Amino acid sequence: MSDSYFHPVSGFDLPRFAGVATFMRLPHVGLEDPRLSDVDVGLIGVPWDSGTTNRAGPRHGPRQLRDMSTMIRAQNGATGVRPFEMVNCADLGDVPPNPADIQESMKRITSFYDTVLKAGIFPMTAGGDHLSTLPILRAVAAKSPVGMIHFDSHTDLFKDYFNGTQYTHGTPFRRAVEEGLLDPQRVCMIGIRGTTYDSEDRDFAKSVGIRVIPIEEFHARGVSDVMSEAREIAGSGDTYISYDIDFIDPAFAPGTGTPEIGGPNSYQAIEVVRHLVGVKIIGADLVEVSPPFDSSGGTAYLGASLIFEMLCVIAPTLRPDTATA
Amino acid sequence: MSDSYFHPVSGFDLPRFAGVATFMRLPHVGLEDPRLSDVDVGLIGVPWDSGTTNRAGPRHGPRQLRDMSTMIRAQNGATGVRPFEMVNCADLGDVPPNPADIQESMKRITSFYDTVLKAGIFPMTAGGDHLSTLPILRAVAAKSPVGMIHFDSHTDLFKDYFNGTQYTHGTPFRRAVEEGLLDPQRVCMIGIRGTTYDSEDRDFAKSVGIRVIPIEEFHARGVSDVMSEAREIAGSGDTYISYDIDFIDPAFAPGTGTPEIGGPNSYQAIEVVRHLVGVKIIGADLVEVSPPFDSSGGTAYLGASLIFEMLCVIAPTLRPDTATA
Amino acid sequence: MSDSYFHPVSGFDLPRFAGVATFMRLPHVGLEDPRLSDVDVGLIGVPWDSGTTNRAGPRHGPRQLRDMSTMIRAQNGATGVRPFEMVNCADLGDVPPNPADIQESMKRITSFYDTVLKAGIFPMTAGGDHLSTLPILRAVAAKSPVGMIHFDSHTDLFKDYFNGTQYTHGTPFRRAVEEGLLDPQRVCMIGIRGTTYDSEDRDFAKSVGIRVIPIEEFHARGVSDVMSEAREIAGSGDTYISYDIDFIDPAFAPGTGTPEIGGPNSYQAIEVVRHLVGVKIIGADLVEVSPPFDSSGGTAYLGASLIFEMLCVIAPTLRPDTATA
Amino acid sequence: MSDSYFHPVSGFDLPRFAGVATFMRLPHVGLEDPRLSDVDVGLIGVPWDSGTTNRAGPRHGPRQLRDMSTMIRAQNGATGVRPFEMVNCADLGDVPPNPADIQESMKRITSFYDTVLKAGIFPMTAGGDHLSTLPILRAVAAKSPVGMIHFDSHTDLFKDYFNGTQYTHGTPFRRAVEEGLLDPQRVCMIGIRGTTYDSEDRDFAKSVGIRVIPIEEFHARGVSDVMSEAREIAGSGDTYISYDIDFIDPAFAPGTGTPEIGGPNSYQAIEVVRHLVGVKIIGADLVEVSPPFDSSGGTAYLGASLIFEMLCVIAPTLRPDTATA
Amino acid sequence: MSDSYFHPVSGFDLPRFAGVATFMRLPHVGLEDPRLSDVDVGLIGVPWDSGTTNRAGPRHGPRQLRDMSTMIRAQNGATGVRPFEMVNCADLGDVPPNPADIQESMKRITSFYDTVLKAGIFPMTAGGDHLSTLPILRAVAAKSPVGMIHFDSHTDLFKDYFNGTQYTHGTPFRRAVEEGLLDPQRVCMIGIRGTTYDSEDRDFAKSVGIRVIPIEEFHARGVSDVMSEAREIAGSGDTYISYDIDFIDPAFAPGTGTPEIGGPNSYQAIEVVRHLVGVKIIGADLVEVSPPFDSSGGTAYLGASLIFEMLCVIAPTLRPDTATA
Amino acid sequence: MSDSYFHPVSGFDLPRFAGVATFMRLPHVGLEDPRLSDVDVGLIGVPWDSGTTNRAGPRHGPRQLRDMSTMIRAQNGATGVRPFEMVNCADLGDVPPNPADIQESMKRITSFYDTVLKAGIFPMTAGGDHLSTLPILRAVAAKSPVGMIHFDSHTDLFKDYFNGTQYTHGTPFRRAVEEGLLDPQRVCMIGIRGTTYDSEDRDFAKSVGIRVIPIEEFHARGVSDVMSEAREIAGSGDTYISYDIDFIDPAFAPGTGTPEIGGPNSYQAIEVVRHLVGVKIIGADLVEVSPPFDSSGGTAYLGASLIFEMLCVIAPTLRPDTATA
Repeated sequence: MSDSYFHPVSGFDLPRFAGVATFMRLPHVGLEDPRLSDVDVGLIGVPWDSGTTNRAGPRHGPRQLRDMSTMIRAQNGATGVRPFEMVNCADLGDVPPNPADIQESMKRITSFYDTVLKAGIFPMTAGGDHLSTLPILRAVAAKSPVGMIHFDSHTDLFKDYFNGTQYTHGTPFRRAVEEGLLDPQRVCMIGIRGTTYDSEDRDFAKSVGIRVIPIEEFHARGVSDVMSEAREIAGSGDTYISYDIDFIDPAFAPGTGTPEIGGPNSYQAIEVVRHLVGVKIIGADLVEVSPPFDSSGGTAYLGASLIFEMLCVIAPTLRPDTATA
Repeated sequence: MSDSYFHPVSGFDLPRFAGVATFMRLPHVGLEDPRLSDVDVGLIGVPWDSGTTNRAGPRHGPRQLRDMSTMIRAQNGATGVRPFEMVNCADLGDVPPNPADIQESMKRITSFYDTVLKAGIFPMTAGGDHLSTLPILRAVAAKSPVGMIHFDSHTDLFKDYFNGTQYTHGTPFRRAVEEGLLDPQRVCMIGIRGTTYDSEDRDFAKSVGIRVIPIEEFHARGVSDVMSEAREIAGSGDTYISYDIDFIDPAFAPGTGTPEIGGPNSYQAIEVVRHLVGVKIIGADLVEVSPPFDSSGGTAYLGASLIFEMLCVIAPTLRPDTATA
Repeated sequence: MSDSYFHPVSGFDLPRFAGVATFMRLPHVGLEDPRLSDVDVGLIGVPWDSGTTNRAGPRHGPRQLRDMSTMIRAQNGATGVRPFEMVNCADLGDVPPNPADIQESMKRITSFYDTVLKAGIFPMTAGGDHLSTLPILRAVAAKSPVGMIHFDSHTDLFKDYFNGTQYTHGTPFRRAVEEGLLDPQRVCMIGIRGTTYDSEDRDFAKSVGIRVIPIEEFHARGVSDVMSEAREIAGSGDTYISYDIDFIDPAFAPGTGTPEIGGPNSYQAIEVVRHLVGVKIIGADLVEVSPPFDSSGGTAYLGASLIFEMLCVIAPTLRPDTATA
Repeated sequence: MSDSYFHPVSGFDLPRFAGVATFMRLPHVGLEDPRLSDVDVGLIGVPWDSGTTNRAGPRHGPRQLRDMSTMIRAQNGATGVRPFEMVNCADLGDVPPNPADIQESMKRITSFYDTVLKAGIFPMTAGGDHLSTLPILRAVAAKSPVGMIHFDSHTDLFKDYFNGTQYTHGTPFRRAVEEGLLDPQRVCMIGIRGTTYDSEDRDFAKSVGIRVIPIEEFHARGVSDVMSEAREIAGSGDTYISYDIDFIDPAFAPGTGTPEIGGPNSYQAIEVVRHLVGVKIIGADLVEVSPPFDSSGGTAYLGASLIFEMLCVIAPTLRPDTATA
Repeated sequence: MSDSYFHPVSGFDLPRFAGVATFMRLPHVGLEDPRLSDVDVGLIGVPWDSGTTNRAGPRHGPRQLRDMSTMIRAQNGATGVRPFEMVNCADLGDVPPNPADIQESMKRITSFYDTVLKAGIFPMTAGGDHLSTLPILRAVAAKSPVGMIHFDSHTDLFKDYFNGTQYTHGTPFRRAVEEGLLDPQRVCMIGIRGTTYDSEDRDFAKSVGIRVIPIEEFHARGVSDVMSEAREIAGSGDTYISYDIDFIDPAFAPGTGTPEIGGPNSYQAIEVVRHLVGVKIIGADLVEVSPPFDSSGGTAYLGASLIFEMLCVIAPTLRPDTATA
Repeated sequence: MSDSYFHPVSGFDLPRFAGVATFMRLPHVGLEDPRLSDVDVGLIGVPWDSGTTNRAGPRHGPRQLRDMSTMIRAQNGATGVRPFEMVNCADLGDVPPNPADIQESMKRITSFYDTVLKAGIFPMTAGGDHLSTLPILRAVAAKSPVGMIHFDSHTDLFKDYFNGTQYTHGTPFRRAVEEGLLDPQRVCMIGIRGTTYDSEDRDFAKSVGIRVIPIEEFHARGVSDVMSEAREIAGSGDTYISYDIDFIDPAFAPGTGTPEIGGPNSYQAIEVVRHLVGVKIIGADLVEVSPPFDSSGGTAYLGASLIFEMLCVIAPTLRPDTATA
């Protein structure tokens, strides 16, 4: 059982619209806080979108995700899991980016995650644009390459943008493969769709062994079959989960910079997470929530709900003794 | 055939954006109006949300539902039913709540419905938050407990809120069972999902025999199978229909206070109503439309469309002689 | 291969949020431009909604469709088609309507399309309300009646509105049949739903042999089966494609004047277009995008995506030699 | 004292967000209603914008003005006037326009006002675009030309639009002068500003003796001085008041189709009305409220407040015996 | 000088869109926190709107005020005051209301402020609707009645609502006078305007000696003259400042439930605060910010700016030794 | 007289909501277009916001400014100037930024303006964030330092951000002074206000002789007096005009990233431009319009109106022979 210090504030004690908004109403435990060593799962914001080549906004993602996450309660209605009672969860605050310096920002992110990992904390990230995942992987996969299950409408595998720019939200996984952070044979990308500049990204995927499952295949085979293959690809090794909110159809998730029509609905969006049970997850993120394109917060609420679903898969693996029957 | 006085204003005579907005463009017949005795089906607004524990707004529901309902035409395109020609429908206006006094408001609601029922009018309600249903049931089920088919993402069966508060929009059906207004064995709740404080509500349901069909089961079995069971549970006795707009996925119905992702789409939202044919319905409501969270009115339009679909099921039962071939 | 003059500006050269917004970032080639004779496919705006009987707004459709179309890239991710490399596409600008004179506006539209067709250009229209299609058909079907595959929630086959008004967005195809522009036996209408004034439109359809596929049938049979029948009905003759954005469910396409709930999702919206391969298309439109009801532009982005999908079906038929393997 | 039947519903009896929305919560008295003969002041909606050459929307004005007018209470806080107790006010409903036929619509409007005037009712109009005023003047000034005090950022005096179109919202007062409905020597236009096609409108004004007070002069002289001149121009004869909401700066009134920056603030917007005391007003309107450009309703609320202020000036002239001390 | 623990996070260390949002980016110090005893000024949220008789929403005020307050920097550009360096300021969190129980909520509020005052902390409140001020005054004026300078468009002095309801946001100051919390001779209400039910509130004001300055007088005399009188009325005794955001014109502050047109602009809104220098302020609030009516947050930003201005007046009085030259 | 090729499309020929949106409906003349040499005034978009340290968005400014500028007509209603008939104006398109590389983007901007200036074209810029002005000044002031009249709520004179970052939208004029692009003695900054980190910027201003006029002084002295001083400071030398939209109060211009309350209204916003007559203007910009924070476009419309006002001041100086009487 978790330490009660790390239990979220209940909506019965303080209504859900009230109080300082932290992720899931968890205590805010900064990196210098003595409580840090007690944390099992750290929810971390990366308020950064300098890698965005199209419509910016994910810098505001963590704030709105915190806000909407206050509507999340204690227990998963479907699976019965109560993650906050199984492990000590905390809001570790935001990595401080420098919005006008990409390289500096990436260094700060990696450094923040180095500290988190050193403290033995599982990092659950709320982005930020997808370039955020690269400096996170530099910490998470510092010792050896990891596998990845990646939900997205884009591969983010492009070589460069604007004729030579290496670091954008369209290139993180190309860099991650080049830097030896990802084991391409253990990477599966699900939901890919939309118009493309060309096939260079998918040609690269093929050449290194990354499995790309386009949306047409996803809709034809169904969640269960696709996720079964994804779990097989990830295998038993350390695996990172990267969930781009634009994986989901823009009717359900309008608040994102580069939407692509024809995606999964919100039920499928949950289902793919529930099918991650059995994967050895060592880090996860939910990225590309862009509040300026969804002032109602519906996209952030969907994102917060998905983070909760991820926690319900992750928590039992960290404290298998506490698992609900 | 209905009295032509009760025919909605046609969009061919007065464009649908024009005119004083009443429900379905029906005549406004107040409780003191001599025409009241001619009314078969009364559309009633309950502009009240004092039982809301989270984000308020349904007090504005009836107004926006009236506004958007002016886009509804005379005939059901799928079933051919023309409800306004079968029975005399009218807008009975709004129950006057006291926004600062819950008990007083509940008394006023019950009293309003007593009058309506005494006049032999079928009450079709536009909420209001879900606590509205409790004082309505106090009138509708005054003589004996009724069955209920309940579409919602929440059971609204909690014992209390905030450590002892008995009357909120999360408790109406607990109270209704306790007060003998509902026959729990004839109650079926469909679409339940989302995070929960705990399982106290569903434990209670089980203990009294209320059937709860969670969304996972709904998606797995499909509308037809689920509704077949629901009709069986309701049986041949008097049955109330309570339709919370948050039953539907928030992409389709963002305008509500406590959305839960992963719900049915708008086609399924209609289908469940069409499968109510055969149930002995003695009252119905559509609640929790919250305009402040959907300034475009799309949620209210969906709600108005569902009220129309309900009328198309109800009207033939009131005047079986007028049923369309 | 197409002339490089007609290639869209790449997002790698000029970010997609930048630059003067033309359809798909294609060159703007007006009717007096000497380049006109080189154009194979002309994207044309009809910023006109004087035929709208309910909520106006499609006059703003072309502008917003241009804006959102700048997010479309070069290649179809699913089919690999690169339409802009196969044929010379250009933005021909907008037909100048007279917002206060319906007859005059229709004359101007027909005249504009006469010029376009005379230049041998395939007309791909961005509306405008659905009355726009009538003056377009007067040009396109000037010599002999054409077939039509029509995606919509309404038949637009009414005899008149407001007791005698012949030209509204609810009547274009009644007029088109009367004027001999459409061969009713080769017309198929898909997705029809919603409340109706009466059955007069569908009675007329039946009387002249137009096939109407209501949404219930669409959902029951699925895209592939329905589209197979549609292709058969259209046969091998010249066929016009008319796509009303309200064919799609309002959760996906809120930005339209007369939404009807229960429609297809965005994936089905794409799929129906992809199933048009094999039809002899001689003109196409995407109408009823109404920006005032969707300030975020999501509906226009969906519309622009569908225009792109149509181009991917049309381009290979115009230059069969360039088709992608 | 007025008949209590014509008293608005009090917010103390029914909260202001509740109930069927009529203008000022007054009873709805249609032209066939026997109560019509008791009405002193009729609030009339003209939901029509077919004369709009730019961004449409005022067809939705009356509905939203009704909605927001339910926030208006019984008494003018500044002047103490209680108009609804002085004269019998009622909501006469909307004139039914034909959105696809300008001439037919104008005929219907004139006919509606003929009936109203014949019944001895003062017509207080909620538009609608500014072309609405022309058919109203045809009724109001049927016998002899009237004077006019006109608040607007445009003169609406143009000869024609689109090379020959005579009836648009930019031409009503040119037509009214030509038709002998306005006595140009008794017309004063206040607040004129913004970019212009040319000076043709103001040249015409000068040629017939219409006084145009541009916004620069308004700001320099102040409300009191300008209104003193306006009253003098109107003199003691019958005078119509036409108030275009775009008279006010778009920060205060964004919901309009053709905003011009640099206008009066909301306090000045009220003040000009209060300075109308002493004018012999025989009809008034508030036009060009366009809800699609202000979903929050702030513009409509401002418009409703101005209609109330006009009623507070008009009522004492109709029943001088009832004037507040 | 203040303790550096209580310095806001600088935008140079963590960009202003980043981090957990507390008031002014100050540390969150709950009532049980040992740091509480070091706090000089406590910023307190009262997320409660159960007293709202019209459009609800202020329950969401504190959250959005926190969010927008992160754009406030360290120093007053006009006066040079750096309040956070003069006194120890902290975010004390929100009072937990019971949204479904008015009396219980008022008890909780008074109890919270009792604790705050006992700790010697100056209470700076972010509402909440205006009924919040009553339970605050019960703590603040527990020993003897206080004076009050009140910025508002309403007097909030009504006897009751809905025929007998004593506790609403329209009655707090009537109750406060009755309960001996306010010394009416030392109360000044500024900016009063709008339509009214009747004059009962102002008659009461007159009868007990409360000075009401209507907006007409405010605009005529100007800020400096009016505030000079207000300071004189408040005199040298303990004075509470209550600032209802609807004091300001709705173009500047649309996010409120009961707007009244014709109010001050944002510059005057600041100026009145700056003219409070010299008043012996013992508590202050900023109430009625209603986020559902201003999704952009502009009203909350204005509110946060005003709270900062108030702090710049208050801080020098608490630590006169630290005042900036 | 200007060449008719450079006349905007009239709203009488093509309604203002129609057509491809270019600045002021002028022809689009790219840098490679042979017509470039005929252009007198070039309207240039800089869709770039990488220097933004707070809320991003101005990258979308040029697109929305083009859109809203289509509502601008031919003639200044107040001054009678018809700029497009006096000089050849054209839309030169957008400078292509690299959103992920600040230095590269600045090089591209300077290079673009070098070409424009070499062609003898007056550069009228639509930003973009305020860092855009630095690379523009590098071209405009390449030979010798220029004076500047700067409307803004911020000085943008900070030394660096985030502890060492030199190039942000808060530092351009510090850099410009250091680089010898501005003659500080001939620089006047008007409207400065809001909270500040410290006084470092204003201390620097004082040290180099830049005149800063805070908003309090602006409101106290009035437009005419302040602008008289500004003209004197600028003197007779080459002067650049930089107009940050956040100079204006956020009620009038909400669509910007760093609003500060208490600013000028829209009439004063125009007036300051009209008082620029007599200044030797050699370049001008309107920056920081951020569409994500104003989806209605009102801010962009205000911005477009101000660009037009600037053109009305500039055009007569370029072709003094054509000045209107």
